[in-house]
Amino acid sequence: MIYMDHAATSWPKPPEVLKAMIQYLEESGGNPGRSGHRLSVAAGRIIYETREAVAELLGVRDPLRVIFTLNATHAINLVLRATLRPGDRVVVTGMEHNAVMRPLRAMAVKHGIQVVVAPAQSDGSTDVAQVGPLLQPKARLLVAAHASNVTGTLAPMEELSRLAHAAGALVLADAAQTVGAVPIGIGHMGADFLVFSGHKGLLGPPGTGGVALGDGVDATALEPLILGGTGSRSESEEPPAHLPDRFEVGTPNGVGLAGLGAGVRWVQSHGVEELRAREMSLRRQLVEGLKTLRGVVVHGPRNPADATAVVSFTVLGRSVSEIGSQLDERFGILCRVGLHCAPRAHRSIGTYPEGTVRLSPGPFIEPADIDAVLSALRQVVARS
Amino acid sequence: MIYMDHAATSWPKPPEVLKAMIQYLEESGGNPGRSGHRLSVAAGRIIYETREAVAELLGVRDPLRVIFTLNATHAINLVLRATLRPGDRVVVTGMEHNAVMRPLRAMAVKHGIQVVVAPAQSDGSTDVAQVGPLLQPKARLLVAAHASNVTGTLAPMEELSRLAHAAGALVLADAAQTVGAVPIGIGHMGADFLVFSGHKGLLGPPGTGGVALGDGVDATALEPLILGGTGSRSESEEPPAHLPDRFEVGTPNGVGLAGLGAGVRWVQSHGVEELRAREMSLRRQLVEGLKTLRGVVVHGPRNPADATAVVSFTVLGRSVSEIGSQLDERFGILCRVGLHCAPRAHRSIGTYPEGTVRLSPGPFIEPADIDAVLSALRQVVARS
Repeated sequence: MIYMDHAATSWPKPPEVLKAMIQYLEESGGNPGRSGHRLSVAAGRIIYETREAVAELLGVRDPLRVIFTLNATHAINLVLRATLRPGDRVVVTGMEHNAVMRPLRAMAVKHGIQVVVAPAQSDGSTDVAQVGPLLQPKARLLVAAHASNVTGTLAPMEELSRLAHAAGALVLADAAQTVGAVPIGIGHMGADFLVFSGHKGLLGPPGTGGVALGDGVDATALEPLILGGTGSRSESEEPPAHLPDRFEVGTPNGVGLAGLGAGVRWVQSHGVEELRAREMSLRRQLVEGLKTLRGVVVHGPRNPADATAVVSFTVLGRSVSEIGSQLDERFGILCRVGLHCAPRAHRSIGTYPEGTVRLSPGPFIEPADIDAVLSALRQVVARS
Repeated sequence: MIYMDHAATSWPKPPEVLKAMIQYLEESGGNPGRSGHRLSVAAGRIIYETREAVAELLGVRDPLRVIFTLNATHAINLVLRATLRPGDRVVVTGMEHNAVMRPLRAMAVKHGIQVVVAPAQSDGSTDVAQVGPLLQPKARLLVAAHASNVTGTLAPMEELSRLAHAAGALVLADAAQTVGAVPIGIGHMGADFLVFSGHKGLLGPPGTGGVALGDGVDATALEPLILGGTGSRSESEEPPAHLPDRFEVGTPNGVGLAGLGAGVRWVQSHGVEELRAREMSLRRQLVEGLKTLRGVVVHGPRNPADATAVVSFTVLGRSVSEIGSQLDERFGILCRVGLHCAPRAHRSIGTYPEGTVRLSPGPFIEPADIDAVLSALRQVVARS
């Protein structure tokens, strides 16, 4: 079996991740921040260590500015609800996921939020020259996928952030596809909100994700999406002002966060630069091979510097779902086909409504696996 | 070490829970409902099995009407946001947790929601005769903790639901403290929304919880709290109308739900009635013992039929935090002291702002453990 669906979730996880989860449940499974006893304190310490590890990886100076959520989608909703007021204008790229588009469309109907889509090219890239004017006058927020989950195309975040800040807008970078796979610094990137997934490039378990807040963000001015008990300021029926408690309510996913910490440490010990170099070599091998197959069209950036290892393609005259089924059933190759929850992106690159076949290697994929994928595809495509 | 903090989170978990989690991550860790390959399908199947197990336990006819969330707090917020409209009136009991009170207080300020608290007695019970008039005219929602997390007092849910429905109000039962510990049928209880925690009486891992929807609830009329990709209807930027996808967005906590399924099956195989009988016997032993200690005041219902195994007490002239520290440090007995994120409940029973010492046994606590707790307390209290 060759798992080529890391853009959906990474698999397998490093053994350290499972070990940390088992250890958490066996040795420190109290409710963190609630009780004062040893198991509760131990749980709180492990979650804080994960917070520190994520903060260090993303260049966040204060670990308390890392907020954990159920997943990246939850984190995006948290930011949208916290920042947008009725009538606000928000500019998004043409490559956004439904994690961004669905809440925004609902807010457009309900709160009169104006959603402006900056057009993307067919390779998934954003024309920065077109974004500046769209931010004028007075957009409240710019949202950009740091990398598209369809084509792997990287957005020029620093430039986009500069434009947004010049126009007085805040910046939400959706880094679900890039944390752990591309070097990231929240300050360098200029993001006010950096949303991450825990179970993709960070190699943690599902049920983890979050958002890091930039230095310039006044968290006390932001309204929480979900309110409830925090174990802190229990005498009050108001949400606490301090981080992360203002946004993390109810019992946290301690066991998941223990696993996430182990995943982040695995990533750090191997080095994000090194992991990226390795993945980009696999991508090159994959794209070069795909180009030799008759009828195959790769949808994504030409320049590998502008891409992650996510590769989308279509085959002329063939259905993507049939190709996906054959890869799974005949060859044990697992990929994802269709729209990948990102209809906006597929409209931008011209593959709507059929979608693409998406191959996304991860850190445990070897060059021999890519050879096997190409060999299988050669047979699948030849059959047409 | 004696863990007496099950009302915060259950510990340890049955070995089957860890086993199911490990197996999920090792053998079926795809992203459920996203891709069509075997690991994704396997993950989806396991989550559906958990949904079925929870539905069966709670008497929910259609497993798709069980919605999973990060925790019970998330589920409560989901319901409040979905049901309340500006100006609506909501009646709550005097024993509610901040998971209910904090979001409602915020909605009162922001949306003019009117929050009416039905007074509770000092034993945590609700005077049903007083609730009827408060629901008139036209309350939109009644919220009641099925059991208080402070005193263990059970609310007369059937009666409350009857009154609420007679007044045209919906019913949200917060069963965070009772699922797995008290027999529950959503229909019998009359709840339109039954919120549950996954990591307390159901013995699952943290990061799990949810809400079951009653038969009368038209889910398509309810607005989701969080929107995003669902793996379904990916061509659309509107949220899907069908359950559970309308309310479950982004990658679900598959590994946590695998563990929850194993927890629910453990509970089912032991029988909720049997588990309750066992816990109530421990409660009796604990309360009888506490009554023999000088200066100890137990706060909770006299009649065990009205209670869960959660026992709160104070000691005249002594600080609860000092008692908690001594129990932990000198005797390895883990409990929770203070307000338990429920200031409203402590105001009702007269223990605000100091709170109580709370002892909450679980299914792995033996009568000998209760003896040890009482012996320790005898020494701690005698020292005064």
